[in-house]
Amino acid sequence: MSQTSTASNPSAATIVVTGDRTTGPLHLGHYVGSLQTRLSLQETHHPFILLADTQALADHQGDYRAVRQSVIDVALDYLAVGIDPQKSTILIQSMVPELAELSFYLMNLVSIARLERNPTVKSELKAKGQDRDVAAGFLTYPVSQAADITALRGSLIPVGADQLPMIEQTNEIVRRFNRMVGENVLNECSALLSNTSRLPGIDGKTKMSRAAGNHISLAASADDIEQAVNKMYTDANHLTIGSPGQIEGNVVFSFLDAFDAEPAHVNELKAQYQHGGLADRVIKARLNEQLQALIGPIRERRAQLAKDPDAILSLLLCGSAKARQTAALTLHKVKTAMGMYYF
Amino acid sequence: MSQTSTASNPSAATIVVTGDRTTGPLHLGHYVGSLQTRLSLQETHHPFILLADTQALADHQGDYRAVRQSVIDVALDYLAVGIDPQKSTILIQSMVPELAELSFYLMNLVSIARLERNPTVKSELKAKGQDRDVAAGFLTYPVSQAADITALRGSLIPVGADQLPMIEQTNEIVRRFNRMVGENVLNECSALLSNTSRLPGIDGKTKMSRAAGNHISLAASADDIEQAVNKMYTDANHLTIGSPGQIEGNVVFSFLDAFDAEPAHVNELKAQYQHGGLADRVIKARLNEQLQALIGPIRERRAQLAKDPDAILSLLLCGSAKARQTAALTLHKVKTAMGMYYF
Repeated sequence: MSQTSTASNPSAATIVVTGDRTTGPLHLGHYVGSLQTRLSLQETHHPFILLADTQALADHQGDYRAVRQSVIDVALDYLAVGIDPQKSTILIQSMVPELAELSFYLMNLVSIARLERNPTVKSELKAKGQDRDVAAGFLTYPVSQAADITALRGSLIPVGADQLPMIEQTNEIVRRFNRMVGENVLNECSALLSNTSRLPGIDGKTKMSRAAGNHISLAASADDIEQAVNKMYTDANHLTIGSPGQIEGNVVFSFLDAFDAEPAHVNELKAQYQHGGLADRVIKARLNEQLQALIGPIRERRAQLAKDPDAILSLLLCGSAKARQTAALTLHKVKTAMGMYYF
Repeated sequence: MSQTSTASNPSAATIVVTGDRTTGPLHLGHYVGSLQTRLSLQETHHPFILLADTQALADHQGDYRAVRQSVIDVALDYLAVGIDPQKSTILIQSMVPELAELSFYLMNLVSIARLERNPTVKSELKAKGQDRDVAAGFLTYPVSQAADITALRGSLIPVGADQLPMIEQTNEIVRRFNRMVGENVLNECSALLSNTSRLPGIDGKTKMSRAAGNHISLAASADDIEQAVNKMYTDANHLTIGSPGQIEGNVVFSFLDAFDAEPAHVNELKAQYQHGGLADRVIKARLNEQLQALIGPIRERRAQLAKDPDAILSLLLCGSAKARQTAALTLHKVKTAMGMYYF
């Protein structure tokens, strides 16, 4: 992981803010892309992890029931992979109304044109085939994200490279606000860029996603896992066991790189595969074994935790109340700086 | 006044919601355009009157100090003209955070394209010479207005004709929300259109406004009033007292129509002026006398009230707390309908 820029106040304590839009249970792409990072960060920092339900509504307004259900699903995923509520503060976005309120004030500090130029938003709109008919709540979600980060005093934000423009936009808003009121009320933040390469979908597409249906869920059954592995693309030209096979673009090897507990063994397999004499079914069996070993315990913990939804909700209530204290303090500072307290 | 459309639920109690963006003290244009209506409405209804400070920030972000000061100024204007806090609930928008929160949810129900097509927003953007560089908070202010109206259960909204598109947009959002959740959680509202014609500026421009500098403030001194009346356009072709003068487009007569306590006398003056033989200085003296009689007592009450700003603030705190109960209940219904309560 590498930190891309320095925060405006390097002496301030590092506060990590991260989270997920609650649009469905998590999958292996999330595990590689963000959950592993959080597991390591919670040992040294005490990250805020945000279940972004209101943000999920921005492009899933009609699916509000699914968004609501996903809050529980994603929380179960977090806990099942080892996010520890003693070491991380998990909060529900809609339970911290100060985030919406701060967002409302920050909305005046960014133009429609600037939001439309945000590369992350731009590519998301392109993927949706939308432009001017996009919901106002979606085009402005970078402002909401800036509010989440700044309200919680986030100084270090773990992101993928595609999310870097969001950090830039947040810092632009922060500087604009601070310049306006003439004091450093809000903090700039730095991106913590993951070094791990992105996990492809089981179909070999660059990104694993639920929407594309090329994912392996963290709650996948043993059969689901085996079927997914069997479906994976290897090397289309590897027609006989004896012929040399290609590693590049071979989904099974991408997954072995990401998940095999013995990298040395993976290297041996790669050499053998490239030389010829290693069957696809052998590497798939190896991957299946590794994924069963990883997901099996997660699935079991998840099923165990799901039996007591009240306990999960209590955890989230507690985390939200804790986050709310920080957010309320930031909002208080923002409104004080603007003279918006009348008493 | 005429009611333009019927509310979705005609049996519900009529709730009037109105207000002003706090961008400066009020003037005679407000008196004719809205304050008189409110004085009459408070005798039969118990209107919510909103001091829209957060909305004022949408295009006065840098002037936040002035926006804050205007909250007090406008409240003084209200009380000085006779708005009675026992008969009207005066609230400060930023003191009812549920309004921002509701606005956040409604933002997903309207597209950027639709906001850009809103005729009121369109003409305001044109006046500002802005387009894509407009702040997100400004383009989306109709959503915030819809949140204010619906949160307070407003069913009858006094507006000028130029504000009708805002009511239409509010009802569109209401219908969309209700359709989405499958129940009538939010109320549609009707516009109460004022029959009074708009007061021109003292320079004869169609609209009196502080920005154009063609206004007479409700706190104007006796000298200010006299000077403003003297500056008023009459009939540029009325060169000698004896020659016939024109009434149409004659600012002094527009003001006499709006403010003279004796309309019959104004009609006599009009006849005389059109016939010839009535000097501009005579009609100006008449108008000056009428305006001094109207504004003098307002100015005095205002000065008296301004001596005790704490009393004003207490009134506003009280009104905001009262409005907050209604807004919180609406927000609760909205979040419940969307399943956004987790406990």
